[in-house]
Amino acid sequence: MKKMDHIGIAVKDMDFSNALFEKLLGVSPYKLEEVESENVLTSFFKTDTNKIELLSAINPESPIAKFIEKKGEGIHHIAFEVENIQDEIQRLKAEGFVVLDEIPKKGADNKWVVFLHPKSTNGVLIELCQSVK
Amino acid sequence: MKKMDHIGIAVKDMDFSNALFEKLLGVSPYKLEEVESENVLTSFFKTDTNKIELLSAINPESPIAKFIEKKGEGIHHIAFEVENIQDEIQRLKAEGFVVLDEIPKKGADNKWVVFLHPKSTNGVLIELCQSVK
Repeated sequence: MKKMDHIGIAVKDMDFSNALFEKLLGVSPYKLEEVESENVLTSFFKTDTNKIELLSAINPESPIAKFIEKKGEGIHHIAFEVENIQDEIQRLKAEGFVVLDEIPKKGADNKWVVFLHPKSTNGVLIELCQSVK
Repeated sequence: MKKMDHIGIAVKDMDFSNALFEKLLGVSPYKLEEVESENVLTSFFKTDTNKIELLSAINPESPIAKFIEKKGEGIHHIAFEVENIQDEIQRLKAEGFVVLDEIPKKGADNKWVVFLHPKSTNGVLIELCQSVK
């Protein structure tokens, strides 16, 4: 689990934040995608070897709305690309990590995704992702 | 400013967290380094194309002690490597970003570092770094 794929950042206003990160990074977002299963709108920026994913809530049920209400805007998760998400879930469970929703969901960017509970990872929400074949 | 260098994670107990991230990432930390100017102990893990930096406070004056007191353990900053830190500071100031300590400090990993205030970057603490020549 060593390939960092992207950093997810929770934002309130996607238009405002798209403009802000465009100025910061010096590149435009290359994709805007709604993920219905998570009630989020996502926007992706390419960095040298990774991606930055902005996430905004599309309704109050969204985990992003709840995150921002509790913690404010900011870094939401780190995602690592894995070759076999099922094997990695089993390995991490055996090591004592808490896997949320053990059945991977279809996330943004055509990937299967699962999350590790931050209580088992030093307060860091970690996403495992695997490209859908 | 497009090359992500590392993610910094604030931790309470470096020994505990070194063991935890070793299990998570499947690699051992390759360097432990104290940064006196920031009152922090750092530990570095290599990922595929980036690094994970764990940070713990070495005394109560440390910004990491204050961060954990306020927000708990978790992701502290994202660092981008830039070619010319002075030019990038000027560019970002002109774009309206708030640069903390405009004179770069000597950080971990033999780099000059400055931070952007999270209030100007959607709640994300961003580090710019440039390798010391």
